[in-house]
Amino acid sequence: MILETIEKENDIKNVAPENLNLLAEEIREFLIRKISVTGGHLGSNLGAVELTMALHLSLNLPKDKIVWDVGHQSYTHKLLTGRRSGFESLRKYGGMSGFPKRKESACDCFDTGHSSTSISAGLGLVKARDLRNEDHTIISVIGDGSLTGGMAYEALNNAARIKKNFIIVLNDNNMSISENVGGMSKYLNNIRTADKYLDMKEGIYNSLMESRLGEPIVSSIRRAKSSVKQLVIPGMFFEDMGITYLGPVDGHNINAMLKVFREAKRCKSAVLVHVLTQKGKGFVPAEKHPARFHGAEPFDIETGLPLTPKTKSSYTDVFSTVMCKLGDRCEDIVAITAAMPDGTGLKRFRNMYPERFFDVGIAEEHAVTFAAGLAAGGMKPVVAIYSSFLQRAYDQILHDVCIQNLPVVFAIDRAGLVGSDGETHQGIFDLSYLSSIPNMHIMAPKNKWELSDMLKFAVSFAGPIALRYPRGEAYDGLREYREPIRFGKAEWIYHEKDIALIAVGSMVKTALTVREELIAKGFACSIVNARFVKPVDTEMLDEAARSHRLIVTLEENVASGGFGEKVRDYLDENCPGVRLLTIHIPDEYVEHGNVEILRQEVGIDANTIVGRILECLR
Amino acid sequence: MILETIEKENDIKNVAPENLNLLAEEIREFLIRKISVTGGHLGSNLGAVELTMALHLSLNLPKDKIVWDVGHQSYTHKLLTGRRSGFESLRKYGGMSGFPKRKESACDCFDTGHSSTSISAGLGLVKARDLRNEDHTIISVIGDGSLTGGMAYEALNNAARIKKNFIIVLNDNNMSISENVGGMSKYLNNIRTADKYLDMKEGIYNSLMESRLGEPIVSSIRRAKSSVKQLVIPGMFFEDMGITYLGPVDGHNINAMLKVFREAKRCKSAVLVHVLTQKGKGFVPAEKHPARFHGAEPFDIETGLPLTPKTKSSYTDVFSTVMCKLGDRCEDIVAITAAMPDGTGLKRFRNMYPERFFDVGIAEEHAVTFAAGLAAGGMKPVVAIYSSFLQRAYDQILHDVCIQNLPVVFAIDRAGLVGSDGETHQGIFDLSYLSSIPNMHIMAPKNKWELSDMLKFAVSFAGPIALRYPRGEAYDGLREYREPIRFGKAEWIYHEKDIALIAVGSMVKTALTVREELIAKGFACSIVNARFVKPVDTEMLDEAARSHRLIVTLEENVASGGFGEKVRDYLDENCPGVRLLTIHIPDEYVEHGNVEILRQEVGIDANTIVGRILECLR
Repeated sequence: MILETIEKENDIKNVAPENLNLLAEEIREFLIRKISVTGGHLGSNLGAVELTMALHLSLNLPKDKIVWDVGHQSYTHKLLTGRRSGFESLRKYGGMSGFPKRKESACDCFDTGHSSTSISAGLGLVKARDLRNEDHTIISVIGDGSLTGGMAYEALNNAARIKKNFIIVLNDNNMSISENVGGMSKYLNNIRTADKYLDMKEGIYNSLMESRLGEPIVSSIRRAKSSVKQLVIPGMFFEDMGITYLGPVDGHNINAMLKVFREAKRCKSAVLVHVLTQKGKGFVPAEKHPARFHGAEPFDIETGLPLTPKTKSSYTDVFSTVMCKLGDRCEDIVAITAAMPDGTGLKRFRNMYPERFFDVGIAEEHAVTFAAGLAAGGMKPVVAIYSSFLQRAYDQILHDVCIQNLPVVFAIDRAGLVGSDGETHQGIFDLSYLSSIPNMHIMAPKNKWELSDMLKFAVSFAGPIALRYPRGEAYDGLREYREPIRFGKAEWIYHEKDIALIAVGSMVKTALTVREELIAKGFACSIVNARFVKPVDTEMLDEAARSHRLIVTLEENVASGGFGEKVRDYLDENCPGVRLLTIHIPDEYVEHGNVEILRQEVGIDANTIVGRILECLR
Repeated sequence: MILETIEKENDIKNVAPENLNLLAEEIREFLIRKISVTGGHLGSNLGAVELTMALHLSLNLPKDKIVWDVGHQSYTHKLLTGRRSGFESLRKYGGMSGFPKRKESACDCFDTGHSSTSISAGLGLVKARDLRNEDHTIISVIGDGSLTGGMAYEALNNAARIKKNFIIVLNDNNMSISENVGGMSKYLNNIRTADKYLDMKEGIYNSLMESRLGEPIVSSIRRAKSSVKQLVIPGMFFEDMGITYLGPVDGHNINAMLKVFREAKRCKSAVLVHVLTQKGKGFVPAEKHPARFHGAEPFDIETGLPLTPKTKSSYTDVFSTVMCKLGDRCEDIVAITAAMPDGTGLKRFRNMYPERFFDVGIAEEHAVTFAAGLAAGGMKPVVAIYSSFLQRAYDQILHDVCIQNLPVVFAIDRAGLVGSDGETHQGIFDLSYLSSIPNMHIMAPKNKWELSDMLKFAVSFAGPIALRYPRGEAYDGLREYREPIRFGKAEWIYHEKDIALIAVGSMVKTALTVREELIAKGFACSIVNARFVKPVDTEMLDEAARSHRLIVTLEENVASGGFGEKVRDYLDENCPGVRLLTIHIPDEYVEHGNVEILRQEVGIDANTIVGRILECLR
């Protein structure tokens, strides 16, 4: 095995050139084997094997720096920088992250996770390098999907001004997580298929040289830098902005890439190297089903099928089903996703109502203001975005939706702890950032039926409203508790005395276990399903304060601006004497790992909660 | 006066064509006269007079819709839609807003205020129109400055896909608030000055036709849509994305614009009309000093000078001075602004240390992640962005700066109530959205000297840290209270008993008045200058709880996630028995008007606070 000879960064340079393709094959086998056991991002990593090898051959790590946009495609980079053994514990609690982490290796120069940040970060590193008179190469590797995000364009707009070397590698696989969208994607696709077009351009050039007027024109266009390029190269979009364009180059041909990287390093400006890759390359199931193998659960290598087939439906499935029903019932309903038709479950809605479905690309800001425009035009938009990605659109929610009090529904999937993707993806801030916004309303369902009821409630609501629900299996207990949703009203599940557990969404299930244990210890215990985080049901709080000596709020969100603080505000001012304990996520980022372990670590598991309640009562 | 014949929308269509230029002149005179009295956005409005007239002549309002990006250039639009008398009360409390407001007129179809939202909103209106089988024209008017914002690009990327009419007017004055920056700006500038270049392109085309090989090539490029356009028209950047480009057209020539708008309305796609205008057109001082007349205070029409010359320095001035000193003392300090070198006071830093100053355009997201990159590269970045605009970068602060705990300083100007710009610009959410983020630290100075001390403290701090300070005149009282800044520590101004006022930043001054009145009523009263909002000084809280029966927090921020909630959390859990009153901005948007009036309206003026305290004590 050649792979075994690579123990640290730059070891790849000792591999004989004729063995590089063999090494690529070994890396692919390694990744498929490991990810089939641990789960992880497969397709993007298989697509970037040769690209990563070529970068490592061209650079001197860790002096030179690579910023990986999003970062889930950095597995080969990890393999080539001494982290082969880390793959045993990939994305496990305490194990290796699935994303670049500065604390993991000196070869990881900037942490990533969300999309479209790499050019901004890379440009910052470039400016720091130049101001400190250092001499090294900085490369931002960005996918064509990430290029649909506006901040990548903001960064390109600024990169265009620099007079020093900065290399942007456009890893173009013609995909986001699902198919890529928009004008830029079409443009890149035109370049991909531009052979004929290039020939034609050369033809123009040659014919000019032959013509009577051609000679002076050619020399004048040589002086006019931009127009001569329009005649002879693709990528004018980037050249127009002031960024040198090189490519396209085959991203599975190491030698071709080495050559173009050498050329790129000589540029005294920002230079974009357009590299064409194939997502899932070398593993047929991943080539055929790129969305399924984007973030894969453990799978059977032979068949590509998941090892533990899904039996129960997820909240996403429920959302998906109800959206399709609502779409039939109400023609005003439109659905918007930011590059996540599969992840959000909107794919079925897309198939049934293609004209009312909008995938805007990785563009959460646009998604929200576009929804505001749709609502202002009389439609009923449902914007489905993961909790941590919706952070991108905080200003648009505040400024474009809520000031005008427009009826936009926010379906916030992956709210709460998400597990193996780790700190960049935990959805533990949405209750806070949404609560700060006037006119916003927030709900969280206790189980799958309540998600359905809340979604129906939301689409008939006259202002901005959000419902947040967790990743993974939908809770299917408490089916018998299905009071109709009433605005701002909580639901009493058990109405007893002593201790009142007021739980938000996913924490209702936890509250049931907590209650069992408290009863076993001789306490009476009520459970309230909060349903609404904003506004808080103050009548319910009055009632709880009257008949209990301890009130406990439970939420999968940080404290600041969360549910517990709202309850405390009300109780402290209106119900003196009642004791309050707030259970929430501490003011810290939460790393990757199994959700059950993470819950214990952050202290929102039943056991810890029971302990804290008993302590309170002592 | 022709202007007086215009009483409502579409009245302009009754003006004889030969009188339109006269009307434009009258509008300019009107705007200059009115704004010289009330203050307001002058330059952008003077630049858009003919453009607005041409739009109104081409459209049928309110059936057709205009979305004004940012919206501060909508004064002529307001004049032409029956709001002439509103200019008496422009930007005054209860008066006409300086921005489009749906509640003000049926001709205002979408509220704006922040930059770069108009294409997203317009596209939403277009899709709603088409889904509802309606038939009207929708036009988004966006400045070249707003085009530096990423969400405008996200929207263009999506607009490129539509097959129905959608008109984007690019109002290109070659300026943001200050000079425009970046590759896109350079590109547009190339088009502006492209006469020669266009001639040359035509030359290429003609010479091709004459050459031996030319004929077949020309017919093949006719088929290949994109390349023929590269040969004959500018604006390929937009064409490359899939957006039809028309222009450039002189934005002060009404007839020329009418012609191109007619053409634009026929397109079955998104079409960008490139209109060239001059900011401040027709008023020499505004033409010469565009930044000064962007948002003008009342001024003398003859000289262009402010009517009430500034005597006291603003917080911005103090920030400006201290940054220059720090820049000299420490070579690692770099400064970043998002198109606000004047507004943030960084212009002097730019002049002294041009290589360490970065104006990134209206691109707050990029600004923050770029700063994170600079910090990761060893520099000490200070990012100066207004409170309400920094909302755009919530995710970047959370994801790119704070996860990696990078030492980025956020200098947050215009925090708290800003006055006449109104609800889109009030800086009343920053304590909330910043508090929710782990590793973030937040300070607010009580007076000008403390801003200086805090800024010095911040640049030597090892993690992310924000200081927020208000718009306008810096408080210069309490000079004698200047204890060194210590991390997480508050400052006791008066240490007495009964009532403890714990005030954040600007509210310290208010607390002094409150205290006077309470003393007059026979109460003893302490004042604490909180200094740190995150972390809260819990030793100070212990001390306050021990020796007072009522604690009052005062902040210019909404309640949710603010300072008061943090104090309540701590006191409720650690200091049972002490009463807490939290003074904050209610959970509502705050309209435009004089800040003193607004303070009364939202209940954070001394009088209201005293009343609430007395009520508490009763």
